[in-house]
Parts: sequence; structure tokens; C-alpha cells
Amino acid sequence: MPRLLHIDASAVPTGSVSREVAATFVGAWSGPVTHRDLGARPVPHLTGAGIAARFSPGHEWTAEQATAAFLQDALIGELLAAEAYLFAVPMYNFGAPSTFKAWLDQILVPGRVSGMRPEDSAVAGRPATLVSVRGGGYGPGTPKEGWDFAEPYLRKILTEVLGLELQVITAELTLADTTPGMEGLREAAAVSRAAAHEAARERAQRLTPQPA
Amino acid sequence: MPRLLHIDASAVPTGSVSREVAATFVGAWSGPVTHRDLGARPVPHLTGAGIAARFSPGHEWTAEQATAAFLQDALIGELLAAEAYLFAVPMYNFGAPSTFKAWLDQILVPGRVSGMRPEDSAVAGRPATLVSVRGGGYGPGTPKEGWDFAEPYLRKILTEVLGLELQVITAELTLADTTPGMEGLREAAAVSRAAAHEAARERAQRLTPQPA
Repeated sequence: MPRLLHIDASAVPTGSVSREVAATFVGAWSGPVTHRDLGARPVPHLTGAGIAARFSPGHEWTAEQATAAFLQDALIGELLAAEAYLFAVPMYNFGAPSTFKAWLDQILVPGRVSGMRPEDSAVAGRPATLVSVRGGGYGPGTPKEGWDFAEPYLRKILTEVLGLELQVITAELTLADTTPGMEGLREAAAVSRAAAHEAARERAQRLTPQPA
Repeated sequence: MPRLLHIDASAVPTGSVSREVAATFVGAWSGPVTHRDLGARPVPHLTGAGIAARFSPGHEWTAEQATAAFLQDALIGELLAAEAYLFAVPMYNFGAPSTFKAWLDQILVPGRVSGMRPEDSAVAGRPATLVSVRGGGYGPGTPKEGWDFAEPYLRKILTEVLGLELQVITAELTLADTTPGMEGLREAAAVSRAAAHEAARERAQRLTPQPA
């Protein structure tokens, strides 16, 4: 059974729909799982030392560059050791949380992880699932159409840079239950959340068929 | 003369075109300047404690929540104390660096900094300049058209959330000087960089007219 790398990016430990949908996926996954929780233990930002370390041999590194390089190595090793991916990413301020962007900036080393074309990626063709969660609605005709800078960006990076075989599972309107003025959207929110859980369960079962 | 808040987001201390164009702007600025260097001293990611602190009174905060709240207060105080803004933001992996997103996630507190409409923002109408720098070209008809997830996002947040009066100064193709295959783009890169410096100088002088 393939090893799953499960990344949570929600900053909050409880009440997070992205964490809950990801948990449903993991519950239906039959193989081993590596869990990286960017909310509980955020990855540091990519630094000048981390960039410099990519362009010089290890015996020339400063202590700061070595520390930065070891962090990149650990994250990249974890990425390469997995054979499938689950990214649970809420929208913060109309984009991905800075924690998930920091993880991307750390692992996207040209020539090592990414290449010139998607098929040159070190993880090309591996199955990935993005659980994309947002408090509002961003579909065509909604007041916030054109405000979603999270999902389109993540689709592009995951498929056209990392070359992953991606399924996106979206849960919308998660703020409807607690936000004045959104009462009329609570049913739609519940439907969206239930569909996301069902899609997550199906995707995990399809990727790791149960023994008969 | 208005106080400028100057934010650098490049991770590297030298050889950064965004830092250089911002320095040209600051050199032509006649008022006081607050400099926050997100490359040299990255702002921590927004945490669950930082979010929780927004929804409870100070006397109920845990030590972790208090620390997170003090950081938000410091960054917001710095934002509100300025009357003009300079954001120097390079593109990393087709988006803004995680350091700049972390700064945004820390300061964008609904009801305190941002509101329901752009004009409700605590900094609405103040002049801002975004120095947007990228290694490649992303214009119509280029191979990477549609890959720019940095500038459109920053325009949206700075104008439609923070309500700033924004001018964007873009320098493109900064990798042409050092990247094999981009030799033919070096002249265009030099033109783009020179135009960015000139636009930065003009913008700063227009915002802070020199005494006659």
C-alpha cells in the first residue's frame, strides 16, 4: 500500500473543516501515513541562507546555511518518500495560508524537485488530493467571484509544477453557521461539507482498495 | 511630510531588484521612514493562538495568545502610524513570498484594520506603491501568461481590502542576466529595470514634493 503524506495547513486545532475532511480521507486510507501539521508546527519561511545553500556545496556552507539546508532536506525527503499526497488547505485572506506557501517555497527546488516541465518533477504522476476550504462562496455569479486566489494557484503549482495527478475537493461557506447575514446559506454549507466528506472517503478508497 | 512604511519582502540581502527599486523610492522620499525588512527578520506565521486572541478580551489570554496578540498589535500599530506605504515584493514560485503573506495575515484583522468595504479600512485612501518584481515575463502572449499569482492578488488585497490608493511598478525578466536561454531578453530586462527605477523616483517625489 502506498505511503500518504498528509499536510494540514489550518492554523486552528479544532473546528477546522479542512482538518475534518482530511481526517475522513485518512480514515479511509489503507496504507501508512506521514502527518505534517503546519498549523501546530509551522515551517519557517525560506531565507536568504536557504536560497544561498542551494547554489553552493555543503562544505562551503555557513552554520546558518547548513541549518536551512537540513530543513529543506528533511521536507524534501518526506515529500519524495511518499507515494500519494493529501493537502488540507483553508483560505486565509483570499489566498493560501502563509504556512503552506512557506512549505512550497522550501520544497520547490529547481532541478531537484521541480523541472522545466511537469513530467520532469521528481513526484510527477503521483496522486494528490487537495481539500480546499473557504468560509464564503466564490462561484460564478456570487458577490466574491474573482476573489479566490487560493485554489487556482494551488491547482497550477500542484499540477503544472509538481506534475501531480490532482483531485480537488472543495468545501464552501463554512462561516455560514457563525456569521450574521449568512443564515440563508447554512443549508448550502451543510450540503457542501457533506459532499466533501463523501468525496474524500471515495478518493481514499479508490487509491487504496481494501483487501477483498 | 508623511511617514512612509517601507516593507521589503525579498529573502536575499543583496542583488535583489525589488530592494534596489525600493531604495530608489526611499532615496527620493522627503519624509520620515519606518523600514520593516521581512527578509532579514521574517514575521511569524499567524497561529491558532493569534486567531483566538482576536475573539477574547486580554484578561482571558493565555501566555501564547498574549505573545501572538502583542505581535499583531506591533505590526498594526506600525501600519496605522504611517501615512504612505511602499511594498517591495518579488515573485517566489509564481506567488508572493510567504513572508509577505504572513505579514498580511497578521495585520488583516476584520473590524480593526479591514472592513466590509474598501472605504471602511483603517488606512483607506492612503497612497501605496507596490514594487512587483519577477524573474520572467508574464505579459499577454508570453509562454508564462496566466502564471502570475502574485501581482493580481496583491492588487486585490491592497486596493479592495485595505482601500489603498495604489500604484504598481513592475520590473520583469530579472533572471535574464544569469539564466542560460534568456540571453535574448537582457536588453528588455534592462529597460524594464530602468523604467521601474524612474517610476519609483517620480512617485516618491510626487508624494513628497521638495521644498522650493
